[in-house]
Amino acid sequence: MTTLLWQGKYLEVRLDGTWEFVRRVGAMGAAVILATTDAGEIVLVEQLRRALGRHTIELPAGLIGDDGDFDPAAAAARELAEETGFVAADWVNLGDFATSPGMSAEMFTLFRARGLTRTGPGGGVDGEDIIVHVVPLAGVAEWLDAARARGCVIDSRLLVALALV
Amino acid sequence: MTTLLWQGKYLEVRLDGTWEFVRRVGAMGAAVILATTDAGEIVLVEQLRRALGRHTIELPAGLIGDDGDFDPAAAAARELAEETGFVAADWVNLGDFATSPGMSAEMFTLFRARGLTRTGPGGGVDGEDIIVHVVPLAGVAEWLDAARARGCVIDSRLLVALALV
Repeated sequence: MTTLLWQGKYLEVRLDGTWEFVRRVGAMGAAVILATTDAGEIVLVEQLRRALGRHTIELPAGLIGDDGDFDPAAAAARELAEETGFVAADWVNLGDFATSPGMSAEMFTLFRARGLTRTGPGGGVDGEDIIVHVVPLAGVAEWLDAARARGCVIDSRLLVALALV
Repeated sequence: MTTLLWQGKYLEVRLDGTWEFVRRVGAMGAAVILATTDAGEIVLVEQLRRALGRHTIELPAGLIGDDGDFDPAAAAARELAEETGFVAADWVNLGDFATSPGMSAEMFTLFRARGLTRTGPGGGVDGEDIIVHVVPLAGVAEWLDAARARGCVIDSRLLVALALV
Protein backbone atom coordinates (compact mmCIF):
# COMPACT_ATOMS: atom_id res chain seq x y z
CA MET A 1 0.00 0.00 0.00
CA THR A 2 1.63 3.23 -1.13
CA THR A 3 0.51 6.87 -0.85
CA LEU A 4 0.98 9.47 -3.57
CA LEU A 5 2.99 12.39 -2.11
CA TRP A 6 3.54 14.45 -5.26
CA GLN A 7 2.83 14.13 -8.95
CA GLY A 8 4.40 16.06 -11.82
CA LYS A 9 4.19 15.65 -15.57
CA TYR A 10 6.78 12.85 -15.81
CA LEU A 11 7.60 11.77 -12.25
CA GLU A 12 5.69 11.04 -9.07
CA VAL A 13 6.80 10.48 -5.47
CA ARG A 14 5.19 7.81 -3.32
CA LEU A 15 5.42 6.77 0.33
CA ASP A 16 5.40 3.24 1.78
CA GLY A 17 5.67 3.41 5.56
CA THR A 18 8.51 5.89 6.00
CA TRP A 19 10.10 5.13 2.60
CA GLU A 20 9.88 7.80 -0.08
CA PHE A 21 10.49 6.70 -3.63
CA VAL A 22 10.09 8.03 -7.15
CA ARG A 23 8.54 6.44 -10.19
CA ARG A 24 7.65 7.53 -13.68
CA VAL A 25 4.03 8.59 -14.21
CA GLY A 26 2.40 5.60 -15.88
CA ALA A 27 5.18 3.38 -14.47
CA MET A 28 6.88 3.23 -17.85
CA GLY A 29 9.92 1.02 -18.12
CA ALA A 30 12.95 1.51 -20.31
CA ALA A 31 14.85 -0.50 -22.90
CA VAL A 32 18.65 -0.40 -22.73
CA ILE A 33 20.76 -1.76 -25.57
CA LEU A 34 24.15 -3.44 -25.39
CA ALA A 35 25.07 -3.13 -29.07
CA THR A 36 28.37 -4.54 -30.32
CA THR A 37 29.74 -4.64 -33.85
CA ASP A 38 31.29 -7.60 -35.64
CA ALA A 39 34.60 -5.75 -35.26
CA GLY A 40 34.38 -5.94 -31.44
CA GLU A 41 33.21 -2.39 -30.77
CA ILE A 42 30.52 -1.14 -28.40
CA VAL A 43 28.04 1.58 -29.39
CA LEU A 44 27.81 4.37 -26.80
CA VAL A 45 25.88 7.64 -26.65
CA GLU A 46 26.83 10.97 -25.13
CA GLN A 47 24.31 13.66 -24.20
CA LEU A 48 23.69 16.51 -21.79
CA ARG A 49 21.66 15.27 -18.83
CA ARG A 50 19.81 18.02 -16.97
CA ALA A 51 19.63 15.99 -13.74
CA LEU A 52 23.42 16.15 -13.51
CA GLY A 53 24.09 19.32 -15.50
CA ARG A 54 26.80 17.38 -17.30
CA HIS A 55 27.36 15.22 -20.35
CA THR A 56 26.94 11.50 -19.74
CA ILE A 57 28.24 8.40 -21.48
CA GLU A 58 25.50 5.76 -21.64
CA LEU A 59 24.28 2.72 -23.48
CA PRO A 60 21.58 3.62 -26.04
CA ALA A 61 18.21 3.55 -24.25
CA GLY A 62 14.68 4.83 -24.30
CA LEU A 63 11.31 4.62 -22.63
CA ILE A 64 8.92 1.78 -23.37
CA GLY A 65 5.40 2.94 -24.17
CA ASP A 66 5.91 6.67 -24.63
CA ASP A 67 4.80 6.24 -28.26
CA GLY A 68 1.86 3.98 -27.37
CA ASP A 69 3.74 0.75 -28.18
CA PHE A 70 4.46 -1.23 -25.02
CA ASP A 71 6.64 -3.94 -26.59
CA PRO A 72 10.15 -3.70 -25.06
CA ALA A 73 11.84 -5.23 -28.11
CA ALA A 74 10.19 -2.72 -30.45
CA ALA A 75 11.29 0.13 -28.19
CA ALA A 76 14.85 -1.20 -28.17
CA ALA A 77 15.05 -1.38 -31.97
CA ARG A 78 13.49 2.09 -32.34
CA GLU A 79 15.82 3.71 -29.81
CA LEU A 80 18.94 2.08 -31.23
CA ALA A 81 18.08 3.41 -34.70
CA GLU A 82 17.04 6.88 -33.54
CA GLU A 83 19.95 7.45 -31.20
CA THR A 84 22.78 5.73 -33.09
CA GLY A 85 21.65 5.01 -36.68
CA PHE A 86 22.35 1.30 -36.26
CA VAL A 87 19.95 -1.53 -37.02
CA ALA A 88 20.65 -5.00 -35.61
CA ALA A 89 19.96 -8.44 -37.10
CA ASP A 90 20.28 -10.35 -33.81
CA TRP A 91 18.46 -9.41 -30.61
CA VAL A 92 18.54 -11.19 -27.24
CA ASN A 93 16.55 -10.13 -24.16
CA LEU A 94 19.00 -10.27 -21.23
CA GLY A 95 16.39 -9.65 -18.55
CA ASP A 96 14.99 -6.92 -16.31
CA PHE A 97 16.99 -4.88 -13.80
CA ALA A 98 16.21 -2.19 -11.22
CA THR A 99 18.25 1.01 -11.56
CA SER A 100 18.22 2.18 -7.93
CA PRO A 101 15.79 0.22 -5.77
CA GLY A 102 16.52 2.22 -2.61
CA MET A 103 14.82 5.31 -4.04
CA SER A 104 13.19 4.45 -7.36
CA ALA A 105 10.70 2.00 -8.84
CA GLU A 106 12.40 2.32 -12.22
CA MET A 107 13.16 -0.89 -14.10
CA PHE A 108 14.75 -1.50 -17.47
CA THR A 109 15.01 -4.40 -19.86
CA LEU A 110 18.51 -5.03 -21.21
CA PHE A 111 18.84 -6.18 -24.82
CA ARG A 112 21.93 -7.43 -26.59
CA ALA A 113 22.05 -6.33 -30.24
CA ARG A 114 24.46 -7.86 -32.74
CA GLY A 115 24.73 -8.09 -36.49
CA LEU A 116 24.84 -4.30 -36.72
CA THR A 117 24.46 -2.24 -39.89
CA ARG A 118 24.64 1.53 -39.85
CA THR A 119 21.79 3.02 -41.87
CA GLY A 120 21.76 6.61 -40.61
CA PRO A 121 23.61 9.18 -38.52
CA GLY A 122 21.67 8.75 -35.30
CA GLY A 123 21.60 11.74 -32.97
CA GLY A 124 18.08 11.33 -31.60
CA VAL A 125 14.75 13.03 -32.27
CA ASP A 126 12.80 16.04 -30.98
CA GLY A 127 15.75 18.17 -30.01
CA GLU A 128 17.81 15.34 -28.52
CA ASP A 129 21.44 16.17 -29.26
CA ILE A 130 23.12 12.79 -29.03
CA ILE A 131 26.74 12.11 -29.98
CA VAL A 132 27.46 8.52 -31.05
CA HIS A 133 30.72 6.81 -30.08
CA VAL A 134 31.79 3.43 -31.48
CA VAL A 135 34.51 2.25 -29.11
CA PRO A 136 36.71 -0.88 -29.29
CA LEU A 137 35.75 -3.12 -26.35
CA ALA A 138 39.41 -3.95 -25.77
CA GLY A 139 40.06 -0.31 -24.84
CA VAL A 140 36.73 0.70 -23.32
CA ALA A 141 38.02 1.15 -19.75
CA GLU A 142 40.69 3.59 -20.91
CA TRP A 143 38.19 5.35 -23.18
CA LEU A 144 35.80 5.85 -20.24
CA ASP A 145 38.68 7.18 -18.11
CA ALA A 146 39.39 9.75 -20.84
CA ALA A 147 35.69 10.68 -21.00
CA ARG A 148 35.68 11.25 -17.24
CA ALA A 149 38.82 13.38 -17.59
CA ARG A 150 37.00 15.72 -19.99
CA GLY A 151 34.07 16.05 -17.57
CA CYS A 152 31.63 13.33 -18.57
CA VAL A 153 29.67 11.22 -16.09
CA ILE A 154 29.58 7.47 -16.71
CA ASP A 155 26.19 5.72 -16.50
CA SER A 156 26.07 2.67 -14.24
CA ARG A 157 24.92 0.44 -17.12
CA LEU A 158 28.45 0.77 -18.54
CA LEU A 159 29.49 -1.64 -15.77
CA VAL A 160 28.40 -4.36 -18.18
CA ALA A 161 31.36 -3.49 -20.41
CA LEU A 162 34.03 -3.36 -17.70
CA ALA A 163 35.80 -6.58 -16.77
CA LEU A 164 36.19 -5.85 -13.08
CA VAL A 165 35.80 -9.30 -11.53
CA MET B 1 19.52 26.79 -12.86
CA THR B 2 17.02 24.38 -11.32
CA THR B 3 13.75 24.98 -9.47
CA LEU B 4 12.61 23.00 -6.43
CA LEU B 5 9.21 21.43 -7.20
CA TRP B 6 8.76 19.29 -4.10
CA GLN B 7 10.74 18.36 -1.03
CA GLY B 8 10.20 15.45 1.34
CA LYS B 9 12.25 14.07 4.19
CA TYR B 10 14.67 12.08 2.00
CA LEU B 11 13.97 13.04 -1.62
CA GLU B 12 13.34 16.23 -3.57
CA VAL B 13 12.14 16.86 -7.12
CA ARG B 14 13.68 19.62 -9.22
CA LEU B 15 12.94 21.14 -12.63
CA ASP B 16 15.44 22.29 -15.28
CA GLY B 17 13.57 23.66 -18.29
CA THR B 18 10.93 20.96 -18.84
CA TRP B 19 13.04 18.19 -17.23
CA GLU B 20 11.87 16.84 -13.89
CA PHE B 21 14.41 14.92 -11.85
CA VAL B 22 14.83 13.56 -8.34
CA ARG B 23 17.73 13.85 -5.95
CA ARG B 24 18.39 12.98 -2.34
CA VAL B 25 17.94 15.81 0.15
CA GLY B 26 21.48 16.99 0.88
CA ALA B 27 22.61 15.43 -2.42
CA MET B 28 24.14 12.48 -0.61
CA GLY B 29 26.00 9.97 -2.71
CA ALA B 30 26.33 6.25 -2.16
CA ALA B 31 29.14 3.75 -1.84
CA VAL B 32 28.69 0.41 -3.63
CA ILE B 33 31.02 -2.50 -2.93
CA LEU B 34 32.17 -5.20 -5.34
CA ALA B 35 33.49 -7.64 -2.74
CA THR B 36 35.06 -10.91 -3.84
CA THR B 37 36.63 -13.64 -1.75
CA ASP B 38 39.97 -15.37 -2.33
CA ALA B 39 37.89 -18.42 -3.31
CA GLY B 40 36.37 -16.55 -6.27
CA GLU B 41 32.99 -15.74 -4.74
CA ILE B 42 31.02 -12.48 -4.84
CA VAL B 43 29.22 -11.10 -1.78
CA LEU B 44 25.58 -10.17 -2.50
CA VAL B 45 22.76 -8.87 -0.33
CA GLU B 46 19.05 -9.54 -0.51
CA GLN B 47 16.43 -7.27 1.05
CA LEU B 48 12.85 -6.09 0.67
CA ARG B 49 12.77 -2.82 -1.27
CA ARG B 50 9.64 -0.77 -0.71
CA ALA B 51 10.00 1.08 -4.04
CA LEU B 52 9.46 -2.22 -5.84
CA GLY B 53 7.49 -4.15 -3.22
CA ARG B 54 9.82 -7.06 -3.85
CA HIS B 55 13.08 -8.56 -2.66
CA THR B 56 16.14 -7.39 -4.55
CA ILE B 57 19.59 -8.85 -5.11
CA GLU B 58 22.22 -6.10 -4.90
CA LEU B 59 25.84 -5.38 -4.22
CA PRO B 60 26.37 -4.20 -0.63
CA ALA B 61 25.89 -0.42 -0.54
CA GLY B 62 25.02 2.52 1.63
CA LEU B 63 24.72 6.28 1.74
CA ILE B 64 27.76 8.51 2.17
CA GLY B 65 27.34 11.12 4.88
CA ASP B 66 24.19 9.93 6.62
CA ASP B 67 26.30 9.41 9.77
CA GLY B 68 28.12 12.75 9.40
CA ASP B 69 31.23 11.18 7.82
CA PHE B 70 31.51 12.18 4.15
CA ASP B 71 34.47 9.96 3.25
CA PRO B 72 33.31 7.47 0.59
CA ALA B 73 35.91 4.85 1.55
CA ALA B 74 34.84 4.96 5.19
CA ALA B 75 31.20 4.54 4.16
CA ALA B 76 32.12 1.58 1.97
CA ALA B 77 33.97 -0.21 4.79
CA ARG B 78 31.17 0.51 7.28
CA GLU B 79 28.41 -0.70 4.95
CA LEU B 80 30.27 -3.87 3.96
CA ALA B 81 30.71 -4.78 7.62
CA GLU B 82 27.18 -3.85 8.70
CA GLU B 83 25.40 -5.52 5.81
CA THR B 84 27.58 -8.61 5.28
CA GLY B 85 29.91 -9.06 8.27
CA PHE B 86 32.98 -8.95 6.02
CA VAL B 87 36.03 -6.74 6.46
CA ALA B 88 38.43 -6.26 3.54
CA ALA B 89 42.20 -5.78 3.54
CA ASP B 90 42.41 -4.39 0.00
CA TRP B 91 40.27 -1.52 -1.28
CA VAL B 92 40.33 0.13 -4.71
CA ASN B 93 38.15 3.07 -5.78
CA LEU B 94 36.77 2.17 -9.24
CA GLY B 95 35.21 5.57 -9.89
CA ASP B 96 31.87 7.38 -9.84
CA PHE B 97 28.79 6.39 -11.81
CA ALA B 98 25.29 7.82 -12.30
CA THR B 99 22.44 5.40 -11.59
CA SER B 100 19.77 6.81 -13.90
CA PRO B 101 20.75 10.20 -15.36
CA GLY B 102 17.48 10.63 -17.29
CA MET B 103 15.49 11.08 -14.08
CA SER B 104 17.88 11.22 -11.12
CA ALA B 105 20.90 13.15 -9.91
CA GLU B 106 22.01 10.12 -7.88
CA MET B 107 25.65 9.11 -8.14
CA PHE B 108 27.59 6.32 -6.48
CA THR B 109 31.25 5.47 -5.97
CA LEU B 110 32.14 1.87 -6.75
CA PHE B 111 34.75 0.17 -4.58
CA ARG B 112 36.44 -3.16 -5.13
CA ALA B 113 37.09 -5.01 -1.86
CA ARG B 114 39.41 -8.00 -1.64
CA GLY B 115 41.26 -9.83 1.07
CA LEU B 116 37.99 -10.56 2.85
CA THR B 117 37.61 -11.89 6.38
CA ARG B 118 34.22 -12.59 7.91
CA THR B 119 34.00 -11.12 11.40
CA GLY B 120 30.24 -11.05 11.97
CA PRO B 121 26.89 -12.19 10.65
CA GLY B 122 25.96 -8.99 8.79
CA GLY B 123 22.25 -8.37 8.31
CA GLY B 124 22.27 -4.59 8.63
CA VAL B 125 21.29 -2.17 11.39
CA ASP B 126 18.19 -0.28 12.56
CA GLY B 127 15.65 -2.81 11.39
CA GLU B 128 17.34 -3.60 8.09
CA ASP B 129 16.65 -7.25 7.39
CA ILE B 130 19.43 -8.17 4.99
CA ILE B 131 20.21 -11.70 3.82
CA VAL B 132 23.84 -12.30 2.78
CA HIS B 133 24.67 -14.54 -0.18
CA VAL B 134 28.23 -15.62 -1.03
CA VAL B 135 28.03 -16.85 -4.62
CA PRO B 136 30.74 -18.43 -6.82
CA LEU B 137 31.47 -15.99 -9.65
CA ALA B 138 31.68 -18.87 -12.12
CA GLY B 139 27.97 -19.57 -11.58
CA VAL B 140 26.63 -16.10 -10.80
CA ALA B 141 24.53 -15.75 -13.99
CA GLU B 142 22.68 -18.99 -13.23
CA TRP B 143 22.33 -18.00 -9.57
CA LEU B 144 20.74 -14.68 -10.58
CA ASP B 145 18.38 -16.50 -12.97
CA ALA B 146 17.28 -18.69 -10.05
CA ALA B 147 16.80 -15.60 -7.85
CA ARG B 148 14.60 -14.05 -10.55
CA ALA B 149 12.63 -17.29 -10.75
CA ARG B 150 11.75 -17.05 -7.04
CA GLY B 151 10.58 -13.45 -7.49
CA CYS B 152 13.64 -11.32 -6.79
CA VAL B 153 14.55 -8.20 -8.76
CA ILE B 154 18.17 -7.85 -9.85
CA ASP B 155 19.88 -4.49 -9.25
CA SER B 156 21.60 -2.96 -12.27
CA ARG B 157 24.97 -2.86 -10.48
CA LEU B 158 25.04 -6.68 -10.81
CA LEU B 159 25.86 -6.06 -14.47
CA VAL B 160 29.44 -5.74 -13.26
CA ALA B 161 29.45 -9.47 -12.48
CA LEU B 162 27.94 -10.69 -15.74
CA ALA B 163 30.25 -11.38 -18.65
CA LEU B 164 27.91 -10.25 -21.42
CA VAL B 165 30.32 -8.73 -23.94
